[in-house]
Amino acid sequence: MTIINRRIVLASRPTGEASADNFRLETAELPPLAEGQVLVRHHWLSLDPYMRMRMNDMKSYAAPQALGAVMVGGTAGVVLESRHDGYAAGDSVVGMGGWQEHAVVDGGQPGVLRKVDARRIPLSAYLGAVGMPGVTAWVGLVHLIDPKPGETIVVDAAAGAVGSAVGQLAKARGCRAVGIAGGADKCDYVRDELGFDACIDYKAHRDFASLAAALDEAAPQGVDGLFENVGGLILDVVMSRMNAFGRIALCGMISGYEGAPIPMARPQLLLTQRLKLQGFIVSEHLPLWPAALKELGELVATGRLKYRESVAVGLEKAPAAFIGLLHGANFGKQLVKLA
Amino acid sequence: MTIINRRIVLASRPTGEASADNFRLETAELPPLAEGQVLVRHHWLSLDPYMRMRMNDMKSYAAPQALGAVMVGGTAGVVLESRHDGYAAGDSVVGMGGWQEHAVVDGGQPGVLRKVDARRIPLSAYLGAVGMPGVTAWVGLVHLIDPKPGETIVVDAAAGAVGSAVGQLAKARGCRAVGIAGGADKCDYVRDELGFDACIDYKAHRDFASLAAALDEAAPQGVDGLFENVGGLILDVVMSRMNAFGRIALCGMISGYEGAPIPMARPQLLLTQRLKLQGFIVSEHLPLWPAALKELGELVATGRLKYRESVAVGLEKAPAAFIGLLHGANFGKQLVKLA
Repeated sequence: MTIINRRIVLASRPTGEASADNFRLETAELPPLAEGQVLVRHHWLSLDPYMRMRMNDMKSYAAPQALGAVMVGGTAGVVLESRHDGYAAGDSVVGMGGWQEHAVVDGGQPGVLRKVDARRIPLSAYLGAVGMPGVTAWVGLVHLIDPKPGETIVVDAAAGAVGSAVGQLAKARGCRAVGIAGGADKCDYVRDELGFDACIDYKAHRDFASLAAALDEAAPQGVDGLFENVGGLILDVVMSRMNAFGRIALCGMISGYEGAPIPMARPQLLLTQRLKLQGFIVSEHLPLWPAALKELGELVATGRLKYRESVAVGLEKAPAAFIGLLHGANFGKQLVKLA
Repeated sequence: MTIINRRIVLASRPTGEASADNFRLETAELPPLAEGQVLVRHHWLSLDPYMRMRMNDMKSYAAPQALGAVMVGGTAGVVLESRHDGYAAGDSVVGMGGWQEHAVVDGGQPGVLRKVDARRIPLSAYLGAVGMPGVTAWVGLVHLIDPKPGETIVVDAAAGAVGSAVGQLAKARGCRAVGIAGGADKCDYVRDELGFDACIDYKAHRDFASLAAALDEAAPQGVDGLFENVGGLILDVVMSRMNAFGRIALCGMISGYEGAPIPMARPQLLLTQRLKLQGFIVSEHLPLWPAALKELGELVATGRLKYRESVAVGLEKAPAAFIGLLHGANFGKQLVKLA
């Protein structure tokens, strides 16, 4: 069986904002499987903000994406053919297959492929609420913020894959959950469907004073924990309302990913309020994954953790969907449906 | 015995930089001791940067200093008269007596007065290396930064009471200690007398590139721990050189105490390097004090922890000495000798 694989590679690095020119769609015939290898047909590709940082050639937590190489990315799919004892055709699997329709992976390498149960939980959820974004929410909230009942937790990008889980996990722990999202429709969803106590539309509050007034209303007791995905003005405003001994889990700063300077206006607040701030990457907290996935899987399977997906159909749509994600065009977890 | 007490009160709040006008010297006759009270003659007054923040009427970790009230401050002295069983005339004591020559304190109130041994360790050291500044160094370094042998620790205001202890405690733990201080004489002292591995004169490196180049030379393996007293440009530069999983103990931001804006230029580094930053106040870590004072006292008594004092003589010199401290005019622990 000859398979023609379509894939998207990094064609050039962005100067400023990422654009479609930075990507190139290629086709290539897949070689026959070697002993120990597994051929996976990708059904879903996950698009995530961290990918933008890898497109730059700069010091960061991950090596830069190589030019000409397939874009990195989480994938969920089904095994087509296996020459490894651990996998059989028809198995549902998740991995880091990248922006392509198929992947040939070494079945024996730890961590590259994981079999999942796609009957109890939809396959795509393993890229969202029961995958890396959900675990990211869990690690930042449960491990770093460590919320106590009655505390107020704020999360921005609250309608996104990570943010929506943060607020629901906070509610499950007896906290007041306050979201920040872009647009009235996202805020309605965050509040009315996800069950946050309040949600602030940052697009309706473009300056410090206006956003701070909205936060004062949404978080009348101040803020004890901040799960930060955005940075910039939002971070400045929430920091100004943090209570003594507040915790900040710094997960992302998407407002700066395209190169805009996002200085922190008043770092003195970290001192005067004795805040604890920690930057983190979920892949560096592997020991926490089992506990996180257990809770997230249980909550999703029983309908107590809700999520929403933005689905682009076809690999060729991935670049536009990714650029949209960087500007908040997605509503919930951004996916590309590949089969 | 009638005692006329001289004291300095906060006359007005600074607008911008603090000046001598903000203070007023008063005299008042002390009332006779009531049952349970202790009369202390202050020999030493401690001047510390935190006092500047209390002069403002703003939200911070401590209530603002009241107008007309005696300026707050740590003191070391000798008991003149006691109507409390725990103290006798001639006892050496440290407390928070404030900017005045005498204090009448309630001997039964926990924490206000502590008897010390002034034979093994000089009385003034209980306001420095074996007092609040030394414990501050210990808590930030040992508890928050938690340095490992071989790591590089940077501390600014390195010739000061806190900074000088930070570097020496780091050296005792097998770390590379790098100081930042203002002026060649302070740097010589930090390196040659205190035994830091290197010291950077920030006055000779006024911009980012120059200071960063000096740091690259002083810390060729990058920075694992930062004990931050200053903020502003220094913080930006050191952050740019921090290794993954670095820790920042945020103890002070003296460069902003007079109102200058000191934005953090690239908070993204907290994320990309997965840094942990914590603001702290030593008085909120009381359980750590005994262990800290034990080590500090032992090191000072045996000459292994060195310190230097800047001494102003006479209570009336306190305002000028304090203003000098805010601008780095002191060299080591700033004290006022009162008797």
